[in-house]
Amino acid sequence: MKVNGKDMRPIWLDADLKVVKIIDQRCLPHEFKVVDLKTVQDVIGAIKEMTVRGAPLIGVTGAYGVYLATLNSFEKTNEDQYLIKSCSRLKSARPTAVNLSWAVDRVIKAVRSVKSVSEKIETARKEAQKIEAEEVQNCEKIGKYGVELIARISRCKKGKTVNILTHCNAGWLACVEYGTATAPIYAAFEKGIDVHVWVDETRPLNQGARLTAWELNNHGVKHTVITDNAGGHLMQHNMVDLVIVGSDRATCTGDAANKIGTYLKALAAKDNGVPFYVALPSSTFDWHLKNGLRDIPIEERDPDEVRYVQGWNEGVIKSVLIPPATSPAANFAFDVTPARLITGFITERGICRATADDIIKLFPEKV
Amino acid sequence: MKVNGKDMRPIWLDADLKVVKIIDQRCLPHEFKVVDLKTVQDVIGAIKEMTVRGAPLIGVTGAYGVYLATLNSFEKTNEDQYLIKSCSRLKSARPTAVNLSWAVDRVIKAVRSVKSVSEKIETARKEAQKIEAEEVQNCEKIGKYGVELIARISRCKKGKTVNILTHCNAGWLACVEYGTATAPIYAAFEKGIDVHVWVDETRPLNQGARLTAWELNNHGVKHTVITDNAGGHLMQHNMVDLVIVGSDRATCTGDAANKIGTYLKALAAKDNGVPFYVALPSSTFDWHLKNGLRDIPIEERDPDEVRYVQGWNEGVIKSVLIPPATSPAANFAFDVTPARLITGFITERGICRATADDIIKLFPEKV
Repeated sequence: MKVNGKDMRPIWLDADLKVVKIIDQRCLPHEFKVVDLKTVQDVIGAIKEMTVRGAPLIGVTGAYGVYLATLNSFEKTNEDQYLIKSCSRLKSARPTAVNLSWAVDRVIKAVRSVKSVSEKIETARKEAQKIEAEEVQNCEKIGKYGVELIARISRCKKGKTVNILTHCNAGWLACVEYGTATAPIYAAFEKGIDVHVWVDETRPLNQGARLTAWELNNHGVKHTVITDNAGGHLMQHNMVDLVIVGSDRATCTGDAANKIGTYLKALAAKDNGVPFYVALPSSTFDWHLKNGLRDIPIEERDPDEVRYVQGWNEGVIKSVLIPPATSPAANFAFDVTPARLITGFITERGICRATADDIIKLFPEKV
Repeated sequence: MKVNGKDMRPIWLDADLKVVKIIDQRCLPHEFKVVDLKTVQDVIGAIKEMTVRGAPLIGVTGAYGVYLATLNSFEKTNEDQYLIKSCSRLKSARPTAVNLSWAVDRVIKAVRSVKSVSEKIETARKEAQKIEAEEVQNCEKIGKYGVELIARISRCKKGKTVNILTHCNAGWLACVEYGTATAPIYAAFEKGIDVHVWVDETRPLNQGARLTAWELNNHGVKHTVITDNAGGHLMQHNMVDLVIVGSDRATCTGDAANKIGTYLKALAAKDNGVPFYVALPSSTFDWHLKNGLRDIPIEERDPDEVRYVQGWNEGVIKSVLIPPATSPAANFAFDVTPARLITGFITERGICRATADDIIKLFPEKV
C-alpha cells in the first residue's frame, strides 16, 4: 500500500537477503521508523514488544524468523538443536494468534525436507516468501468477496454513505497488503462506493486510532476516530451499517478471538440487527479447537500498557500515567466472540456462516 | 469522605458565604486543586469544562449557582431579569443530566416565594444547602439498600471476594458523599465484606481510572483498573459478580442514560447472567420521559477529548495526541441502556425493577 505516495509493506527482506526490515508500529502515526531484524532473537523481541503485530503479519514475521535462524545456525556447533530451540521460543513469543505457530511449523517442515545447511537456508527463505505471497493473495481475495457485502448495502441505501465500524487494526499493517477487515473497505473505495469508517481507538495500545486511522488517512478513505465505548450508541441510532473485524484465532466451530472489546461490539451488533463479519485468512483457523471460550489461550500483557498512554507531545512521543500511581491494573489482550454473534466469515475462498458445517464446506481438506 | 485522612467534600460554601469552593476534578488523581466559584458564570464554566461532573454534584453545583446569582443580582439594575437569564444559561450548561435543571428550578421556585433581595439570597442559600444535605442522605440510603445485594452474593460465595464492575465515576466525587454506584461498595467495605472493584477506565476523560480509582485507593478498597474493552471478557469468565453504575437521567419507564459505554456493559451482563444495577437518587429521574433512546438528549462534546489523553509525565499534567493530526474524531458523552437490560434500580427508597409499575410504587407522589 502507499505511504506518502510510495509503495510500502510492513515487512520486507533486504537486498542482501540477510536482514529483515519492518516498520516500527509502536511509533506510528507520529514517527515512521524502520527496524532491522538480524537474528531470531530480534524477531522474538519484535513480536513480543509489538513492533510488529496483527495475526497474519506475526505469521509472516515468524516465518522470516526461522529463515534468520537457519542463516545464523551456520555459526553453531549443533545447528539442528539451535533451530529447534530458537523456533520453540519463537512460537511462544505471543500465545493467541495461531498464525505464528502455523507459519513457523510450515517453514521448519520445509527445512527438514532438505539436508545441507545452504539448502536449508534457501528453503527457509523461499518458504517464508511463499507464505508472505500467499497472505497477500488471501487478503486480496478477502477484499474481492467482502466488497460484495458493502456494494449490496450501498445499493439498498441508494448510494448513500455506507458506515462500517472496525475494531483494532486488521489493515495492511496487520497483514502484508490490503488487510483482512480493511480489504473489503479498500476494495469498495477503489470501486467508488461511498464508504465511511468508524475507527474504534482500541485501548490499551490504540491500534485503531494510531494505525487504522493512519492507513485510512494515507489512502484518503473517510473515517472518524471514536472511543471503544461509542459503538453501541452509534448502532442504537442506525449510524452503523456493517461491522467488520479481523481475528487472531478462530475455531472450526466458528468462535473467533480478536482484540479485547470485539465481543462487546458483537453483542451490540446483534442487539441492533447490524451484520457482524469476521475477515480472516485460513491460516487464522485453529482446526483442532471446538470451543473458543474454553480453549483459545488469552494473552495477559503488562498492566503498564493500561496505566500509561503513549502519544505525541511537543514533537516527541511521550507516555502519560492515567490512574493513581499505586492503583493496580489488568491487561487482557483478547476476547472470544461466540459463533452465535457472528453473521459470517469473509475468507479467501468466499463468505460462509460461522458454523462448523459451513466453514468445512469452504475448506473440505481440513476434515 | 477522607482525603489523606481529612474529611472532604467535592463542594462546600466558604465561611464568608460568598464563595463556593470545588475540587478541580480535571486534575485528579495527580494534582489536588481547589477552585473558587464567585459568580454564576464561574459555575457555568465549571460545569461545562467538567471541573465538577457527576449528575448529583452538577445538581448541587447548579443550586449554588442560583445562590451566587442572587448574591450578584444586588449590583444589577433589573435583578429579576438577571436571575432569569443567568439561570437559563446555567440550566443548559450540560444537556444530559436532569439533576441540573431540577435543582436550579427548585432553588428559583424557593427564591420566587420571597420578596426582598436579602430574603432571596438567604432563601437561595438555604435551599441549595438543603438540596446538598438531601443528596448526602439519598446516597447514604442507596448504600444501605444496595449493600444487601452485595451481602447476599458474599453469603452465596461463602465469604469469597465479591467482584463488582463499575463504569465511569458515580462515587462521592460525583455526588457529595458516598456516591451512588459506590455507596453500596463503601457500605460493604465498612461491614467487612470482602469486595474488589473492576474499574472501567472510561474513555475519553478516564473518570474511572482517574477518579474512581483515586477514591477507592484513598479509602483502601481493593480495585483493579481495566480498559473499557475488558468487562465482557471478565463476565464471560465469571470474574464479575455484580455490575453497579450511576445514571445521568432515567425515564419513568426504566431506561437509563449514563456515561458512554454503559450500554455495552449492560449487554455483556445480560449475555452472561450477571446482575446489572443502576444506583440513582430520585432527582435523576425525568418523570416526563417514557422512551430513553428517543427522548434523552445526548451531549456531543469536543472531539479533542477523544484525540488527546491527559496524564502525568515528569511531574506535570501533559496532553498527548493519539491519532494522526488530520484524522477527525467524534465524542458522544452518554448512551442509553434500555430497561430490559437493567436488573434493578437502587434508590433512596429501596430497590425496584426497571419497570414503570415498580418505579412508581416507590415514588407514588410522581404519578
